[in-house]
Amino acid sequence: MEDCIVCKIIKGEIPAFKVYEDDKFLAFLDINPSAAGHTMVVPKQHVSTMFELDAQALGELYKKTCEVAMMIKNSELRPTGFNIGVNHWKTAGQELEHLHVHIIPRKEGDGGGAIQSIVKSSQGEELESMAKKIKEKLNCRKS
Amino acid sequence: MEDCIVCKIIKGEIPAFKVYEDDKFLAFLDINPSAAGHTMVVPKQHVSTMFELDAQALGELYKKTCEVAMMIKNSELRPTGFNIGVNHWKTAGQELEHLHVHIIPRKEGDGGGAIQSIVKSSQGEELESMAKKIKEKLNCRKS
Repeated sequence: MEDCIVCKIIKGEIPAFKVYEDDKFLAFLDINPSAAGHTMVVPKQHVSTMFELDAQALGELYKKTCEVAMMIKNSELRPTGFNIGVNHWKTAGQELEHLHVHIIPRKEGDGGGAIQSIVKSSQGEELESMAKKIKEKLNCRKS
Repeated sequence: MEDCIVCKIIKGEIPAFKVYEDDKFLAFLDINPSAAGHTMVVPKQHVSTMFELDAQALGELYKKTCEVAMMIKNSELRPTGFNIGVNHWKTAGQELEHLHVHIIPRKEGDGGGAIQSIVKSSQGEELESMAKKIKEKLNCRKS
């Protein structure tokens, strides 16, 4: 897409610290890393979110993401854990309008949290009501 | 797996607020939700991490995750964003030894961050060096 920063990185018009590239995917370091080796894996096809991809494309994207993560694990950086995930839409912190999977390498004592620690807007007092609201829209065979 | 809490939820031995179920996947509310509708999607097959799954299984898992997220989006909860991700291994906050994808619904003004805000152990002063360390282990065609 013309104004997409990630597409420009893919085309080589904007520099990046690339760590992996093939015909379908590119992996490059986040310019503002949360941790050593913080990498973003992107499909070269311009899509904004995972919701635009079919199962095969999602499978290829996440298999590649796992491969890049294992390479980071086996590198000198030697992380002992990873948070792997995506922010969808601005409310969730999506800053680039091109799907990118964050690989955040973790080490003991780095002071970080888990993915679920990024927000705390519910105390869980309404679990049963939440489930009912969602299930109204779902094909539920059991509850 | 015998001592796995998630396997027990799948077998119905431990109660959970299930929101979706089919032959291969179960989605249920996080008992300690970060946000209204905070859901975990799990494969019924016991695996600990994404690294144990092939591309087809990863594709099915993430396609299902997207479907559940869209159902949450269309429910009365009406989130306007999602963080979707996985904590791998204890250092990264993995609490259950059964792969589970977090779907964290987000709303404007909920006070939360993005996935990359969960840790800040690097100031990015060594991006070039980081990339070199990782690329030593990667099949890089371009840099």
